[in-house]
Amino acid sequence: MKKLNKPADPRICSVGRSMEILGDRWIMFIIREAFFGVHYYDVFLTNLGIATNVLTDRLKWLVENRILETHADSQDARRKKYVLTEKGRDLFPIILAFITWGDRWLADESGPPLVLTHQKCGHPLTSVMCCEHCREIIDLKDVTGKEVWREKKSS
Amino acid sequence: MKKLNKPADPRICSVGRSMEILGDRWIMFIIREAFFGVHYYDVFLTNLGIATNVLTDRLKWLVENRILETHADSQDARRKKYVLTEKGRDLFPIILAFITWGDRWLADESGPPLVLTHQKCGHPLTSVMCCEHCREIIDLKDVTGKEVWREKKSS
Repeated sequence: MKKLNKPADPRICSVGRSMEILGDRWIMFIIREAFFGVHYYDVFLTNLGIATNVLTDRLKWLVENRILETHADSQDARRKKYVLTEKGRDLFPIILAFITWGDRWLADESGPPLVLTHQKCGHPLTSVMCCEHCREIIDLKDVTGKEVWREKKSS
Repeated sequence: MKKLNKPADPRICSVGRSMEILGDRWIMFIIREAFFGVHYYDVFLTNLGIATNVLTDRLKWLVENRILETHADSQDARRKKYVLTEKGRDLFPIILAFITWGDRWLADESGPPLVLTHQKCGHPLTSVMCCEHCREIIDLKDVTGKEVWREKKSS
């Protein structure tokens, strides 16, 4: 994937670095499909209605950035199987955050399109972002940052 | 913002719906800036090195989608002040998820570029995605879904 749209981003920030890799709609759709258990080129193609050159380009990008890796398929060695790496699986909170926000703000009268269940407690899953240390739900007003964050807060 | 790249997405899913609105690098950069406390057109422009027509287009999109709203500035009524709405502030978990992933996987030797502190417990903030009900950290293997999720898991 070309970095044509990369901003002249003066703020050194992990959001910026993440967006350099993930800041493309197709990329996020492919990652979503991977979490839904899709492994094969032709299934990505059918599920997304994506152009072949775009899909090829984005899969290459995801493999280069070690979010997906390819395995030989056990049934057909000529067929590539795309599998999420650890780095890729670690995107699950981002996908959950998008699901939770979409469920809350974009669902129509029929409610959220997909009901997830948390098998650990057996309840329907709504995700909340918590502090790893105290496990409280993170509220924007309780978060402060060193350097860039404070500096820009006054602008 | 034109929906030129909208996929023929057959999967009804909140990730898809969220990406229709947020699936653009500039959109996420503007939202990040808003969380950093940026309110004004010229500050977005300087901080992002973005073209004026692109910035105008994306701000319009964010206001249309009620993620940002405009207030008259108290100092200068001709100047528009862009403020996150409740729907916009509710994107904080998404921003935190990108920060946490970027800190873990994309930081260089100097470590994460921005250290956040959770004032509620006083510790450096690392966010984890938890189940709202049981407050356990969500592990991919513990999540199952009705309909779409299960159906595609076998592909």
